[in-house]
Order: sequence, then C-alpha cells, then structure tokens
Amino acid sequence: MIKAAVIGATGYAGSELVNLLSGHKDVELTYLASHSYVGKRFSDIYPAYSQCVDLTLQDDDISKASASSDVIFLALPHALASRLVTKEIIKEKVVIDLGADYRLKNSEVYQEWYKAEHGSPALLEDAVYGLPEIHRAEIKKSHLIANPGCYTTCSILALYPLLKHDLINTEGVVIDAKSGVSGAGRSEKTDNLFCEVNENVKAYSVASHRHTPEIEQELSYAAGKEIRLIFTPHLIPMQRGILSTCYATLKEGVTSADVAASYNECYAAEPFVRIISHLPQTRYVRGTNYFDLSFRIDERTNSVIAIGAIDNLIKGAAGQAVQNMNIAFSLDEREGLTMKGGI
Amino acid sequence: MIKAAVIGATGYAGSELVNLLSGHKDVELTYLASHSYVGKRFSDIYPAYSQCVDLTLQDDDISKASASSDVIFLALPHALASRLVTKEIIKEKVVIDLGADYRLKNSEVYQEWYKAEHGSPALLEDAVYGLPEIHRAEIKKSHLIANPGCYTTCSILALYPLLKHDLINTEGVVIDAKSGVSGAGRSEKTDNLFCEVNENVKAYSVASHRHTPEIEQELSYAAGKEIRLIFTPHLIPMQRGILSTCYATLKEGVTSADVAASYNECYAAEPFVRIISHLPQTRYVRGTNYFDLSFRIDERTNSVIAIGAIDNLIKGAAGQAVQNMNIAFSLDEREGLTMKGGI
Amino acid sequence: MIKAAVIGATGYAGSELVNLLSGHKDVELTYLASHSYVGKRFSDIYPAYSQCVDLTLQDDDISKASASSDVIFLALPHALASRLVTKEIIKEKVVIDLGADYRLKNSEVYQEWYKAEHGSPALLEDAVYGLPEIHRAEIKKSHLIANPGCYTTCSILALYPLLKHDLINTEGVVIDAKSGVSGAGRSEKTDNLFCEVNENVKAYSVASHRHTPEIEQELSYAAGKEIRLIFTPHLIPMQRGILSTCYATLKEGVTSADVAASYNECYAAEPFVRIISHLPQTRYVRGTNYFDLSFRIDERTNSVIAIGAIDNLIKGAAGQAVQNMNIAFSLDEREGLTMKGGI
Amino acid sequence: MIKAAVIGATGYAGSELVNLLSGHKDVELTYLASHSYVGKRFSDIYPAYSQCVDLTLQDDDISKASASSDVIFLALPHALASRLVTKEIIKEKVVIDLGADYRLKNSEVYQEWYKAEHGSPALLEDAVYGLPEIHRAEIKKSHLIANPGCYTTCSILALYPLLKHDLINTEGVVIDAKSGVSGAGRSEKTDNLFCEVNENVKAYSVASHRHTPEIEQELSYAAGKEIRLIFTPHLIPMQRGILSTCYATLKEGVTSADVAASYNECYAAEPFVRIISHLPQTRYVRGTNYFDLSFRIDERTNSVIAIGAIDNLIKGAAGQAVQNMNIAFSLDEREGLTMKGGI
Repeated sequence: MIKAAVIGATGYAGSELVNLLSGHKDVELTYLASHSYVGKRFSDIYPAYSQCVDLTLQDDDISKASASSDVIFLALPHALASRLVTKEIIKEKVVIDLGADYRLKNSEVYQEWYKAEHGSPALLEDAVYGLPEIHRAEIKKSHLIANPGCYTTCSILALYPLLKHDLINTEGVVIDAKSGVSGAGRSEKTDNLFCEVNENVKAYSVASHRHTPEIEQELSYAAGKEIRLIFTPHLIPMQRGILSTCYATLKEGVTSADVAASYNECYAAEPFVRIISHLPQTRYVRGTNYFDLSFRIDERTNSVIAIGAIDNLIKGAAGQAVQNMNIAFSLDEREGLTMKGGI
Repeated sequence: MIKAAVIGATGYAGSELVNLLSGHKDVELTYLASHSYVGKRFSDIYPAYSQCVDLTLQDDDISKASASSDVIFLALPHALASRLVTKEIIKEKVVIDLGADYRLKNSEVYQEWYKAEHGSPALLEDAVYGLPEIHRAEIKKSHLIANPGCYTTCSILALYPLLKHDLINTEGVVIDAKSGVSGAGRSEKTDNLFCEVNENVKAYSVASHRHTPEIEQELSYAAGKEIRLIFTPHLIPMQRGILSTCYATLKEGVTSADVAASYNECYAAEPFVRIISHLPQTRYVRGTNYFDLSFRIDERTNSVIAIGAIDNLIKGAAGQAVQNMNIAFSLDEREGLTMKGGI
Repeated sequence: MIKAAVIGATGYAGSELVNLLSGHKDVELTYLASHSYVGKRFSDIYPAYSQCVDLTLQDDDISKASASSDVIFLALPHALASRLVTKEIIKEKVVIDLGADYRLKNSEVYQEWYKAEHGSPALLEDAVYGLPEIHRAEIKKSHLIANPGCYTTCSILALYPLLKHDLINTEGVVIDAKSGVSGAGRSEKTDNLFCEVNENVKAYSVASHRHTPEIEQELSYAAGKEIRLIFTPHLIPMQRGILSTCYATLKEGVTSADVAASYNECYAAEPFVRIISHLPQTRYVRGTNYFDLSFRIDERTNSVIAIGAIDNLIKGAAGQAVQNMNIAFSLDEREGLTMKGGI
Repeated sequence: MIKAAVIGATGYAGSELVNLLSGHKDVELTYLASHSYVGKRFSDIYPAYSQCVDLTLQDDDISKASASSDVIFLALPHALASRLVTKEIIKEKVVIDLGADYRLKNSEVYQEWYKAEHGSPALLEDAVYGLPEIHRAEIKKSHLIANPGCYTTCSILALYPLLKHDLINTEGVVIDAKSGVSGAGRSEKTDNLFCEVNENVKAYSVASHRHTPEIEQELSYAAGKEIRLIFTPHLIPMQRGILSTCYATLKEGVTSADVAASYNECYAAEPFVRIISHLPQTRYVRGTNYFDLSFRIDERTNSVIAIGAIDNLIKGAAGQAVQNMNIAFSLDEREGLTMKGGI
C-alpha cells in the first residue's frame, strides 16, 4: 500500500483528492491536513463523507506528513507550497503539488504573474510539469510533480497536437474558456455567493489570468518557439466543468484530415483522452478523469476551432494528481480513476 | 458472472442502472433494450459513456432478454412491465421491476390510482416489495422484486421505525417531499424545459400522487393498522435528490430518546442508512446509495419532524435495484454501490 | 413628492427597495445609507443600476436621514433598528422597518426567539404589523410600520381566512416553506456559496425558526385564540421566491366551497392577492408584488392543503414596504408596484 | 394610442413583447395570435400574467391583425414571416419582424444559410435592419423593420465602432458568445430539458450558425469592405442573457485611448448603451434593454478584447422591437423600456 498525505484537504480540489484516494485500492490515507479545521474530522467539514472518511484533520506540517507517507499531495494557495517543500523531502518521498508553485520553469515569470516571491527556486529544476499526455516519461522518474492548472490542462491538450505537428499559425491563437464555480475555491467571497453567480456569466482576469504563462510555456515547447496567445476565462453558473474553445488559423494547405491525424497520433493510446465526433459538453465528463476533444474546420476563414472539456476538479486537479501518482509509482495509470459520467 | 438485461435502458433511471451494472465486478451486461433507439449504441444516446458502454440497443423483447440473462431489470412506464412478465420467466430468472406495476398488493388499488388495467394480477402474490431495510428476508427468496418508488423509499424509511415502535399517532401524518427534475424522466414536455423549471418551485399532484398508496401500504404494515396520510410532492430546480420532511404527533410520554432508539434499532446495522445529527442535505447523498436521516422534536406542539434524503436515481431507483440484485444473488449487499458523494 | 430615506440600502432587500422607490413617480430618494460602503455610489455596489441610481451612500445616521425625508425605511439586521428609532422621529416622520424589531407585540417573546435585548420596547405600542390585507386601516394611521417577514407574509396570508372563518382545527397546523437563497441575505458565509447551494435542498432551523412566533401571533389574532403550529423553512437552489405549503384538518362539515368562500371574502378586493385555480409556482410571481394562492381538499384525510407563493424580496420585503408607504401616505396602493412577471 | 398586434405571442420572445407592450403607456394591444393556442387566454399559457394580460389568442392571420392595428409584430420561426407580409400591408401599417426573414439584404445568402426559400424577396429593398444605434434614421422612415437577432445585436454593437473607425484588422476577428437557454425557444426538445442543460456548457453550430452572415453584413457595412469572421455560440445553464467576447488585433499604432474614443463617439448619446469600466455581467442587464460594453487591451498580443452583454429577450428581441416602434412612431425612444436590473 502506498501511504498518502494530503495537505490542504478541505478545499474543493483537496476534498476531491481525498475522495479519490480513499477509494484507490493501492492507497492508504495516513495524514490529512487542513489549517482551518485542525482537530475536526474530515466528515465534519464534508458530511457527504460520513462513515466513509472520518479521519481527523492535522495541521499543515510537511515533516509530519512526510514521516507517515510515501507521497505527499499539496493543495494549497500559491506561494505556500514552495515554502514547505525541501530537497530532503523529495529525496525520499514523492511530492505532487496541485498548486502553481512548480509549474513555471522560470521563477521570474512566476513572480511577475503571481506577485509573490518563489519559496524554493532551486527546486524548479527538479520539478516536472505533470501533464501525462506530454511528459509521462519524466513524471515516471520525478519526485516533484507540478500538477497542471484546470484551465491549462483543458487548453494545452486541445492545442498541443496542432502545434507539435506545425499545422497552425503561432500568431492569433485565442482560447476562450468557461468554468464552473468550484474552480474559484471555497473561500467566502461575495463574488462566489449563489445570488451573485446564478443566472449570470462574466469574463474575468481578461488579458491577465495567471494560467496564461503556463499555457504558453507548454505550447511553446510543442511548437519549438515562443508563443504569445490570448486566454480569457469566464465564470458560468454551474459547479464543475471547463470548456475551452480554441481558435487558430491553419497553415496553408492543412486539411481537416491533417488535423484529425495529429490528434490521433498524440492521443489514440491515451487512457483519458476521448477524441469524439460530436461536440464536447462538460456534463459528459462530469465526475470523470476524461478529456473530451473535438474540432471543426471553418473553411470560410481557414481556421480550426478545437474544443475540449474536462471536470475541473478531476482531470483539472485531483484526478490528474492521482494519475501522476499512478505513473510515478508504476501502477496501472487508470487505477482509482475509472469513474464514468452520467446525467 | 451474473448476466444482466436492462429493458428501458435509456430513461434516466435505466441509464443510471446501466452505469452501475457496468461497473459491478460480478455482473456482465448482456442485453440493453430501448424501444426508441433500437440499433443505436447506448453511448450514442448518452455520450458520457463513450468508450465505457458502447453496447447496441435492442428492442423491448423480454424473451430475448430472458434467454441471454440471469436477471432482467425493467425500467418502463407503468402498465408496460406487467404485460411483459410471465410465470415462466420468473420461474427461471429474477425480474427486478423499477416501475410501479408490482408494488401494490391490491390490483384494485393499482387500477384506481394508475387508471390502468394491471397486466398480470396473478403474479402479484409472487412479488416482493423491494425495500431491503424492511423486506430483506423475502427479497432473498424472491424472483419478482418490485423496486420501490423514489419518493416512497425516502418517505417510508423516515417514518417506518416510528410506526413500528408505536411512537406516533397514525392520524395527521404529513409528508412534504421535494424532488429534483430527473424524477420526471426524460420525456419532452414543456413542463420539464430548463426555462420552466429553473428559478422555480411548485407543488404538483396535490392530494393525488400515485406514490401515496404505496407509502400507506408499507406504513400500514409497520403500524399493524390502516393508515391514511397526506403526501405532497414538489419540484425544485436541481437534477437529482429527494428530501422528505415528515411530520407526526408523538404519543403521550414519548421522548426524543425513544425516537432515537427506534431508529437505531431498525437501522444501526443497515449498510446504506446513515442516522446523522446534522440535518440531511441532498448533496450529501448525491451519486450514492445512502439514505440520510435525522429528526427534531418540537416540544411546543409535541411533534416529531423526521427528515430523510436520497439520490432519487440511486437509492430511489437504480442503486436500490442493484442492492436487491445483490441480495437475491447472495452477493455482498454493498457490491457495486460504494460510491461516495462530494461537492 | 415624498422624500424617502433607506438605511441598509445595500442588502438584497434594501437594494430592491431602492430599485422600487427610484421608479415610483411620487417618491424622491434623498438619503441612502450603507454602513459597509459609505462614500461609494450605490451603482458601484450594484452595477445593474449604473446610470439609474448613482446616489452616494451615507452612514447609518437616522437623524440625518430623518432631517432630509418624510419616510425612513430601515433594512437592517434585527436588534439594530430598535436602537435607532425614537419617539421624536415617529412623531414627525413615518418609519417602515423591514426587520423584525417591531413585529412581535411582546418584547419578551422577542427576546426569547431573537436572543437580543429590544432597543425600544416602549415604542411597540405605536407599531402596526404591516400586512395590508389584515391591518390596512391601522397602517393608514401609523407612523411605525413593522413590515412582515418573507416567510410570514406567505404563510399568514395562506391560512388567515381559514382561521378567521373557523374552518380548520387550530391544532396540527403544519407550514412547510421553501425559499430561494436571497432570503439569506448577502453575507459572506460558506453556506451561501454557489457550490454549497446549487443542486441541493435542505431544511434548516427546524422547530426553531424566528418567523414562527410572528406567524402564530397573527394567526392567533385571526382565530381569536392562542395557536401553536409547526413551521419548517427549506433552502432551495434559486434566487428569489417562497412557496408555503400549509396543512390543516377541516372542521366537521366544512366543504371545499366554504374554503373558497373564505378566501374570496378576505381577498377578492385585494390588489395584490390572486386566488387561482392552478397550483402556484414561484416563477409566476417573480419580480412582482403578488401573492398567489390556491388550495386542494384531501377528502381521504379531511384536510385542506393551502399553497401560497410570493417573491420574497418584493411582497416579502421591499414591495410590501412600498405598499405600506402608499397606504400611509394615501396614495394609490398599486403605485410603483405594477410589475408583471414573465419567464 | 398605437394599436398593436403580436403574431407569435406565446414563444418566449413573443410573450416578453406582450409583457412590454401591455405596460407601454401609448400602446393598446388589439390582437394576439398563437397558432398553437387559439381560443385560450394569454394568461392560460403564461399564468404569470393572470389578471394582467387575459386577452384571448387568435390565429396567425395577418389580415385580421392588420385590420385592427397600426403596428404588427411578428415573432415566428424563420420562413413564415416572409410568406405573410405583403406590399399592401406595409403601405399602411408598420411591420416589425423579430425573425430572420428580412435581415439579410441578399436573398441568396438567406437561402444558403437558412435552407429555405424566401417568401417575399421583393420586399427586401423595403426592409431596414432594425439596430437603432446604427440605422436609426432609416428606421424612422421604414414600414418594414427587421429586428436583429440576439447574438447579432450583442456582437455587432461590440465591434461596430472599432471597424467604423478603422482600428482593427478585418482578418482574424473571433466572436465567442454565451447564451442562456431562452434563446432556444420554448420547443419541446430533449436538448432543452432541465436535466440536459443544467450543470453543463456546450458549443453548438460551430462554424455554421445562422447569425454569422447577419453579423458579417453589418460589420462589412461598418468597415466599408467584406469581412469574414468566426462566430461560435455556446449554451450555458441560465435562462436569460448573452455575453459576447470579441477578439481582434489592433492596427499599428492604435491605443487604448483610440478604442475608448471610438466607443464614445458612437455610443455616448445612446439611451440604451452603457460604456462601463468594470467587466460586463449578464445579470447587470437582466430584464432591461441595456447593452453593456467594456474592453481590455492585451499588449502582449496587440489585441483588443471587447465584451458586450444584453438580455437576449429584451435588447436581443422584444425590447429592441419596442425601441424600433418608438422610433418609427416618433415617441420617446425610452418609452416603456425604463426597466432596471437588480439581483
């Protein structure tokens, strides 16, 4: 059994992680931490888990977590994780960070976008960007896995094959993403109240959202050159799900078949990518670790519109973290992640 | 492996049943039928199940279903199931009917409330009311299991112990139930359109809902005498979940401790009943087979208010059907039903 | 023009009041106060009102408000209003309190249920319970109008005629009410977050909600004797609207026609009560000052089920306050309240 | 008083139109038609209007409608209106068509996108595109006003000033729009059921939506040259509202101040356009005739992101129709349209 610790267990992503790990046949939960609720049971905070997960919540102490576990998941606000992780810890244990601290290779870019000092820039060279469809081989060998953001998972996966196969122009790429509210976390803000969210849609952080450099980093890697793109997140009145609608102009002569081939080449063997003919809907992936993908060619403008959908708390957070753990510990990558959707 | 057929696989309850059965380690799905979609794949109708359940849909032929399976689930509108089932079929196979046809012991009561002729009244004596918490022993031996309705499961379980232990007056019982929209099924009615349901609450079938005689039958059984009560269903803007708020006056001298003891006596050993101290919320049981229960005493009126919550598609339909199958086939009753809730 | 002040202008009820008053042809808004947002414009807090209501918010100073206005509306948490209002103010001005402080005639009952000292018990004898359908004549002459609660408006109006005409037993009355989330106000609580409210229904404050004594006070007045009843509020995932489902047993010999006659006698001339044959739905009254009412007789249990619906922010708060102002200032009672519903 | 007829009164847009016209001080409703509900009262179909609009519904007979009215509103599925309108009718009466039939100047383009024969191509030269902010002068003189589509109103208004002032490149324009479900109408389709729409977001009609040529027609007019752009509609789980997020690259040297100036020049005097500094949200315009607009410059990609919001049933349909009527009949353009939003 793999012993697992979760620090930041009572946020929405953290609680989903506890859910998945508690049902994973090769995992034993040994340490759940929540700064705000030390001493309470996990099921006191999430009564849905009564008689399922009744563990008592500890404080955010990575040493204690490390002492009792083989893998430590961090689900914390940015800038906190990088102050906890040390060289010593990742020498012996595997750390999977669901936050932003180890995703960007360049700590200056991190500081520019996150307006915060990075707590352990020296560890960045040890970190692997935990998107299995792109970096599986490195994840397998890594002890510090930076789990991607929710918007970024959905957006990168939709565009990666097109850039890797040089099918689209690197200028003029637009990603318009729509997210459910759980992505905003469980914090008590007026903006997240039911009456402010329901029957409403808005864009936010236009031209300034922190997932932008993360998307650009990975797509630049795919293209083999620096890319600048527009990423616009929107909040819509639902709990879970992200839909990314991605726009790009095709290079001359590129056909629909070329686009289809690029997706097949990259994803045909992927356990959690479904290339589908109908258009993706977030409800089809709700509660699952799937990334659903489809595309349309607009011949009038010689463009491709690639659309991807995920559950932001699963493939966009907790599910992908478990997938990374499965890879790092050489388990079947699907273990504990066979949930299907439904209505 | 138990070979299972589902007739009526593309309604909401039917599709949830397919979902659960396809993940059950002791079950093999052999026959899925849907009158409306013969020849299509199940995942064409429910794209959430792409690459998970791609079986082709057959017609509603119970002989073919029976030939290829050990257990036949029927998820059909009322009055259809009772025309399909025969003495011969239930001699060799187990039939679990998610509809109303075999729930009422008295076919005249059936005809009065359902305004339809019963198709096989002679089989009623073979039928067992499939509420495991009350009739487990008979279910174990039965080949014709009448899976209870969603409202009825939630309401009967909330009141059964109080009547069995003679703690409340049998007159003046009121059940006020609130249901999500999936209970209304997948039919194309104006009333079920998003714009008619969202931001709305309404009562319906007041003093005339067909689940009333079913609730009365089982509670009369508990009380050992005929009971007449008021049951009022309401539709609220959510997909899944039923909350039953049940009101009754206490018999003289009955204390809160007596009430608590009656619930413990009936349910302490039940795998899918959680007696909780906080008030039930439907989201705590969403996606699970749990029935959550709590109560409050109103000393000012000497009353008990018992509140129960279920997922109408799981404990109120497909989950309970699987639970019944597990019992009838001597499997672990929890098999395939270990889903936990979440946000 | 009537000069109007609103203290507590940025809560949901307060903002709806500003909305209504700003469109009232006989009213001029002279003073808007909001403790939390002094110095900001009203439309900074509610951008929906940009270029419509751009007044600057003042502090909660009833003297200043009084100096500049003929009528002062208070939309504050309980126990605050009763510390602001004085004998002097109501000598010259009309005060309409949307909070709870002047609703209960008995300050001891107030303290028992609200766990707070009443700030001005001496003024209680000056206060009128501002439910026009019952107390119109007194409202006309009053300078201190206690605007009823949202649940209470909906519940009292549904049952008042039945008790006034002695048609139901005073024991065993049950009120099961369902409310949208705006009733919980705009405070930043985890419980009011979108992800906690959506796809969920729950009962709360069972056997202990503060609107209970208010309902009992008015229904006891109608019956001419003390009444104790059960009132259970529920929260459902919508913004606006309350549905009250009220249960009572009929006195011997009472017919459906008697019930209908009692409603007609009380409400036929009422501008904001609609006695309807179909069952009420909250969307039919959304955005309006209507109270919609219907009933069904359950002959099996000799009971009446009376169902009422209102918009909790309009007839349940701001609209009723304007209706009371119209009465107190001898305007057409409908003035400023002719909004119709819709989808 | 202007006598008004509405043909197609019981769709969502039609009913909203009835709502607005019934409250308009210069209008008398003389003829309401609904093919499906002839002989019923309007308030039978929309009980929200009980005692407000109880007119009896007639059949879709434009001659009768014309005989009793000065203005005839058509709210019909495409291809029906153009078979009803004649030269004779628009000689004497004003026709305002909320459908698509008279929006496109070119009947071949119409047939290509709508797959239907146009019923009266000879009348196209009489028709004016009823977007007051662009064509007010012609509307004033017209007897056949083609009320714009909902998506198109929101999208054209967001981009029109930028093209008119030559600030953006005409290639690479992307419009990503999000709509509530009422835009899909009141038809009984599985896709519009609550359980299919709630907790879901999807794109649809990608690269093929019929509002595309309408947007291109008007923006080409603004630019003085042919434009091809990408328009992608999305359905989100809310009833009302459209948000259009529009992307374009800036011409060399264009600044944020230039963009702001272009909007001010076009819209500063407009009664229903609000140029705002915060980002638009659909709830701010819900129930109103406002178009809210804001923009951001993305210097990293030298792009402008213009975001507009409307209520699809008001400024996107019925409200704009009333605005057009007000203009055509030389009334105050705001008459009957002073609704404010709220929560």
